[in-house]
Amino acid sequence: MQIILPSGKTIKADPRVTLLENLKNGGVNIIAPCGGDGVCGRCKVIVKEGKYRTRLKDILSEKEILEGYTAACHTYPESDLKIEIPASSLLNVDGVIATGRAEDLENIFNSLDVPISPLTTKAYLELPVPTLTDNISDMERLKRGLAEMGFRNPNFSFRLIRELARNLRQEDWHVTVTLMDTEYGKEVIRISPGKADKIMDDYGLAIDIGTTTVIVYLIYLATGRLVDIASTYNHQIIYGEDVISRIVYATEHGGLRDLKEAVIDDINSLIESLKGKYRLSDRAIESIVIAGNTTMMQLFLGFDPASIRKEPYVTTTNRFPIAGAGRIGIKVMPDVPVYTLPCAAGYVGGDIVSGVLATKIHEKQELCAFIDVGTNGEIVIGNAEWMVAAACSAGPCFEGGGLKNGMRATEGAIDSVKINPATLEPEITVIGEGVPSGICGSGVIDTISEMFLKGIISPKGKFSTDLGLNHIHLTDAGPEFILYQTGDDAISITESDIDNILRAKAAIYAGFMILLKEVGLTFDDISTFYIAGGFGRYLNIEKAITIGMFPDQPREKFKYLGNTSVTGAYLCLLSENLRKQAEDIADKLTVIELSVSGHFMDEYIAGLFLPHTNLSAFPTVAGSRGIILESTL
Amino acid sequence: MQIILPSGKTIKADPRVTLLENLKNGGVNIIAPCGGDGVCGRCKVIVKEGKYRTRLKDILSEKEILEGYTAACHTYPESDLKIEIPASSLLNVDGVIATGRAEDLENIFNSLDVPISPLTTKAYLELPVPTLTDNISDMERLKRGLAEMGFRNPNFSFRLIRELARNLRQEDWHVTVTLMDTEYGKEVIRISPGKADKIMDDYGLAIDIGTTTVIVYLIYLATGRLVDIASTYNHQIIYGEDVISRIVYATEHGGLRDLKEAVIDDINSLIESLKGKYRLSDRAIESIVIAGNTTMMQLFLGFDPASIRKEPYVTTTNRFPIAGAGRIGIKVMPDVPVYTLPCAAGYVGGDIVSGVLATKIHEKQELCAFIDVGTNGEIVIGNAEWMVAAACSAGPCFEGGGLKNGMRATEGAIDSVKINPATLEPEITVIGEGVPSGICGSGVIDTISEMFLKGIISPKGKFSTDLGLNHIHLTDAGPEFILYQTGDDAISITESDIDNILRAKAAIYAGFMILLKEVGLTFDDISTFYIAGGFGRYLNIEKAITIGMFPDQPREKFKYLGNTSVTGAYLCLLSENLRKQAEDIADKLTVIELSVSGHFMDEYIAGLFLPHTNLSAFPTVAGSRGIILESTL
Repeated sequence: MQIILPSGKTIKADPRVTLLENLKNGGVNIIAPCGGDGVCGRCKVIVKEGKYRTRLKDILSEKEILEGYTAACHTYPESDLKIEIPASSLLNVDGVIATGRAEDLENIFNSLDVPISPLTTKAYLELPVPTLTDNISDMERLKRGLAEMGFRNPNFSFRLIRELARNLRQEDWHVTVTLMDTEYGKEVIRISPGKADKIMDDYGLAIDIGTTTVIVYLIYLATGRLVDIASTYNHQIIYGEDVISRIVYATEHGGLRDLKEAVIDDINSLIESLKGKYRLSDRAIESIVIAGNTTMMQLFLGFDPASIRKEPYVTTTNRFPIAGAGRIGIKVMPDVPVYTLPCAAGYVGGDIVSGVLATKIHEKQELCAFIDVGTNGEIVIGNAEWMVAAACSAGPCFEGGGLKNGMRATEGAIDSVKINPATLEPEITVIGEGVPSGICGSGVIDTISEMFLKGIISPKGKFSTDLGLNHIHLTDAGPEFILYQTGDDAISITESDIDNILRAKAAIYAGFMILLKEVGLTFDDISTFYIAGGFGRYLNIEKAITIGMFPDQPREKFKYLGNTSVTGAYLCLLSENLRKQAEDIADKLTVIELSVSGHFMDEYIAGLFLPHTNLSAFPTVAGSRGIILESTL
Repeated sequence: MQIILPSGKTIKADPRVTLLENLKNGGVNIIAPCGGDGVCGRCKVIVKEGKYRTRLKDILSEKEILEGYTAACHTYPESDLKIEIPASSLLNVDGVIATGRAEDLENIFNSLDVPISPLTTKAYLELPVPTLTDNISDMERLKRGLAEMGFRNPNFSFRLIRELARNLRQEDWHVTVTLMDTEYGKEVIRISPGKADKIMDDYGLAIDIGTTTVIVYLIYLATGRLVDIASTYNHQIIYGEDVISRIVYATEHGGLRDLKEAVIDDINSLIESLKGKYRLSDRAIESIVIAGNTTMMQLFLGFDPASIRKEPYVTTTNRFPIAGAGRIGIKVMPDVPVYTLPCAAGYVGGDIVSGVLATKIHEKQELCAFIDVGTNGEIVIGNAEWMVAAACSAGPCFEGGGLKNGMRATEGAIDSVKINPATLEPEITVIGEGVPSGICGSGVIDTISEMFLKGIISPKGKFSTDLGLNHIHLTDAGPEFILYQTGDDAISITESDIDNILRAKAAIYAGFMILLKEVGLTFDDISTFYIAGGFGRYLNIEKAITIGMFPDQPREKFKYLGNTSVTGAYLCLLSENLRKQAEDIADKLTVIELSVSGHFMDEYIAGLFLPHTNLSAFPTVAGSRGIILESTL
């Protein structure tokens, strides 16, 4: 039994497993944000020919059923099937625009004024040849040589001792020893005969495992230069769009291994592409640092994340041992050390520790706030003396997820939108300047802000359908605002999209408010708001304030930093001192569970308006809207 | 193509490999002391039917060639072969009489007055269930619980962290943690849900890997009681009889793996038999301690021993990391720790450190000597202040090797011999009291001593053939003294055997002399001579002095201890304090290379007489001989 794909290619069909599973096994990655539970309907495909059985029909419209749509997660083939896959069901892996520029990164590192000290150190030894008057064991000879260079009594693994006799003698007692710092002291991780390539040829990888995107920075360790960036979707997405659905998949479906392998495969293919592009030898990659949220870290290392999901939200561990790449499955030399940034709690992970490190809040006297808007939103408030943190579930909409035409900030994404005050027609810019294929976070924020300011939607996010505009379409699912149209295809923002955004921004703002209350402060006490996230190349802070996502504070207080998780990984790749700082930050972050506060729900509901129920908190927005409304009326 | 064995059983014959190899592959263990180099001729078998080719004939007598004998190591089958295997070519694995009795062992341990503290400690924890106000990570919770019990910040392996979440929750946060001391601090080696079997049910293994014999003591850890002993030949013997030929095999034949597997298989089958006999569960064995000479230790761990053989005789390492049984290949639970006694040098190994520990020389004020006569002979002189050690190659003859009818001290071995002064006929005792099948170390010493005292052999070890005795036979190879005869089979001592013993005892005595000279002492300065070795149940010190093996000192100064290597392993199995003492002993032993001394050869040659060229050094022996010679004349 087989499945004929749109390309004409066929894959094997096993009638005992779902079409979703069959497609995955055949290498076709279908999005299944709900983890195959039959809730979201995102995995729908069209069966053009063949027999199948399915019990799940209520999430599809009557029209869709007539056209042959079926939810792949609940469909079992009963004969050869010829199928079509709507673009919306297919995971797009062409690429993701990564943030971060070489100069910016190097400037950050240089400003920290710490010496470069990667995870590994190399020592070249010319040991004296044994004689009858100096016939200590090979191990003692090596340890004596290392002690003379200041490396006292390092740990050696069994494997290294087994190969010691040969490695010491192969180049006549000239040997290069690679050492690494661990929690338990120095450890020798490699002994190479002769004088190894000088450290100048060594590269490191700083990797951010985001819920949505995996980014790899290739770094030249001697100078800290960013050589190149490679990125891809986190293929775990085919098992669920947010951390909760992935934890469910890992636990209830026994899919921990699938999730681990998915992200390891992503990392390996990114490394492979960078190695190929720069013709790097197998020995070129010397160390790896990984950042990401707590669940991503646990999945990456193969630790069961089940308890993160359930109150009281505990992790397996917040400190990760440095492990050899071989043990984890990363395809570089197996002894390459992989350092994973420490986490603070189940929902305040290594990405946030990275962000604090990159913004240097932990060294500042003045109070700062750090907000990382990813699939989850995390907020840190504090300074060198204290730091509190909280997480709230924003959902993936600011990265384009869960929206009718949402997409990540890659080529083809509408990333800024203005609405002409006279005609109320949208004016868009597109990443890559080509034909748009969707809209990313910054574009959505712009659109909603503009629609609100121009009176196209009410403070409740409902369309003013009486405007009689051409580019407001009424569909079965409600009205939508058309941003771009060619033929039958349209890119639009629906009322349901707006609801999604309202919920997300309300959660972030409410989290911020509760966290401030917990420490008895107001927004006015914060001197700088550092904003991180995958919105796009730019984030229009004015617009984000307009929709009530961020507080109505002087605009110069805000700094948009893009992806700070990978920046922190980069910093830890380069410096022992900064790795220690990261550990201190993780220790110092006091995590507050927002769900425990009785006020969170009140704050959240108050935030489900544009900009907010409490208009007095958004004086400049209220002002703008008033003025603009006047001019258009 | 196949080989038909004497039993009628057939095994596969591969014409590309030797008969020796074919037999080994078929599970038939032939002795090949020279490692298959075609030097010793010990691997000879009789081909009754079939074609083969061999180039090696000069080590066989004409008669043997006519009878169909061929050296298996240089014989290649060319058709089906029907063979016979002389008993002398076959490795006898029926059993070895191990020394050591339960009460003796317990007395030694009790006299040391240290508490029982095995390699592992178990901690039972009832951890508080996580709550929102106490939601630290699983790892922090466990570490906090351990710290409350006094175990601060232990190391955890990656594997344990992966399984942590499940193991803590399975029995509702009740958990038993097994910890171990390492060079780098405490390490957790196992986390078991619930309350584990109490420590009272745990057993340990003390193992001596001798060049010839492997001995396993099963020990009840709670009391230190010796439950039982199992022993077997070290099957490495099929690759060579002494350490040198095994090192050659390991290096020049690339056979390190064969040697490692041979001894691991021996250990595993001994453990299996003990487990079966006492119906022990897989979890019953909790820790293992291994002693043996340096080469045995390196082969056991798979470390290349090549450099031990060549000047300046260096080892890979003299300190061995504690390794999990699974990593080494011992078939108990893979996380069971295996502690290997430290060595002092290439030829002063963990067996000698064991011996010092067992004799407590390192704690004594008076000067003592320790002599371990195995396949190599090692000597230690010293006290609590200082210790020197040296090794000399004695050869395997005191364990029965290299003698015409030599055998280990097992059932059927002649272990004591008297010669009737009137008839000059031998009077023998046999281990097990049955028909003798050979002679062990103590029997050989007795025989030669008696023959010398009774004037049957000269001080040069040559037969006084003019005595006209019935039980002196003259053969092509020279005269031999018959100890036991039935039909055509005789057990005898040949002149060549006597030469062997003379060389061995001369080496031991010369080593002793040189070592004393190095430290400016004489035998009179030594208060106690501790003798260890596999001679048999008893060692007649009088006779050993008579042949000039040990100095002519008051007999009450001598103590025969049997196998002290396994005793030391036993002590280290029971006590952290004694493991530390063993490390100190290894550090403290100053090893002197006898080959470096210009006087060794002179001393050695002076020792090739009975009792010695310098008769004044053996006044009581000279006296005895004079008297006895008088009475028989």
